[in-house]
Amino acid sequence: MAFKASILTLYPDMFPGPLGHSLSGRALDKGLWQLETRQIRDYATDKHRSVDDTPAGGGAGMVLRADILASAIDDAASAEDPRPRILMSPRGKPLTQARAHELAEGPGAIIVCGRFEGVDQRVIDGRALEEISIGDYILSGGEIGAITLLDAIIRLIPGVMGNMESADTESFETGLLEHPHYTRPADFEGVGIPEVLTSGNHKKISEWRQSEAEKLTKERRPDLWHDFTAE
Amino acid sequence: MAFKASILTLYPDMFPGPLGHSLSGRALDKGLWQLETRQIRDYATDKHRSVDDTPAGGGAGMVLRADILASAIDDAASAEDPRPRILMSPRGKPLTQARAHELAEGPGAIIVCGRFEGVDQRVIDGRALEEISIGDYILSGGEIGAITLLDAIIRLIPGVMGNMESADTESFETGLLEHPHYTRPADFEGVGIPEVLTSGNHKKISEWRQSEAEKLTKERRPDLWHDFTAE
Repeated sequence: MAFKASILTLYPDMFPGPLGHSLSGRALDKGLWQLETRQIRDYATDKHRSVDDTPAGGGAGMVLRADILASAIDDAASAEDPRPRILMSPRGKPLTQARAHELAEGPGAIIVCGRFEGVDQRVIDGRALEEISIGDYILSGGEIGAITLLDAIIRLIPGVMGNMESADTESFETGLLEHPHYTRPADFEGVGIPEVLTSGNHKKISEWRQSEAEKLTKERRPDLWHDFTAE
Repeated sequence: MAFKASILTLYPDMFPGPLGHSLSGRALDKGLWQLETRQIRDYATDKHRSVDDTPAGGGAGMVLRADILASAIDDAASAEDPRPRILMSPRGKPLTQARAHELAEGPGAIIVCGRFEGVDQRVIDGRALEEISIGDYILSGGEIGAITLLDAIIRLIPGVMGNMESADTESFETGLLEHPHYTRPADFEGVGIPEVLTSGNHKKISEWRQSEAEKLTKERRPDLWHDFTAE
């Protein structure tokens, strides 16, 4: 069974969007993953098809209703469906490469895209939604977060990346930011390629790359460096 | 002058993608921001239109050439163009809400979307590219990162969000994750709305929200809580 993503959204036309191109698009065409979208508005119960209401206690914005979202979730996935139920939310646990790997090894995901001010807390609790954040900034809704999450997952699904696209030495896979890259031409605006890289000495090349990766991580991401050296 | 985004990419068809819908799509239609894409491949100099080559020193993947990318950047923006030149990269500085605000107040951005193993370091240095990361995970390319960055920026451009979509109390704007939300119905599967929210006592509601936001941040994001209490 291929990885299956079921997206609950008010903007189903946003999908597959960028996921229909390049690596994830080819994988979708080959059936290496499946995509289904559900329009949350289809689960509204009034004639205006409203899905949100004003926040209890007052304040700006509108809140997505628990009952309507619960109906959509229950229709997308039976209680026996083993797929994790995810809510894209800035309040969630930050997405990591490790979580992307875990999800890529699983059967898929139900992904709820919030909009408006937020989602009624009772459906988050009642359906045990796993809140995932893609970063410490605010987006116009969960859709672009869902696309980002899926792109991170899909490239890790077996068969999606070729040998030429190996992931082993990339940033976060090793706990370090990746070393700098160089390619032809040998001279770019008077700047050459570091000599060690053209030396043919594989041991020295490997040491140089490791040392550059460590230096870069230490300078730019003391938080990652701390975790790396604590391991 | 409206905010102008110039995207350098091998996949111009990915744009505007999700940015053509909803809040950012309406803003694009209204001219509140402008989008231009440039195909990096148009700057290739050989008959195969190749833009990448093998990494100096060996290893998997391909590296985007400095000379070709530099031609594309120089054609997109003259030396006098005041817009920041950004490279979407997992090695970059993590995107924050504060940086999104700064960019939204500026004239726009030149955004380079990397692909393959990486980008030749000499063009990053030679064109003073600001490397921005949207999170600690790997994507198939910079395009989805660029879409995410732009979505975070666009909603902050004056005139894009209405009064009903006020951003003031959101996660990261206050340094805290946002408090839980509730709306009608009063009863969802036997669970009610916290009594304080229906009390009509605005002072108590405000205190409850602040206390919930602090509790949530402390539990989920000790890193943010540390920054918040250190301020």
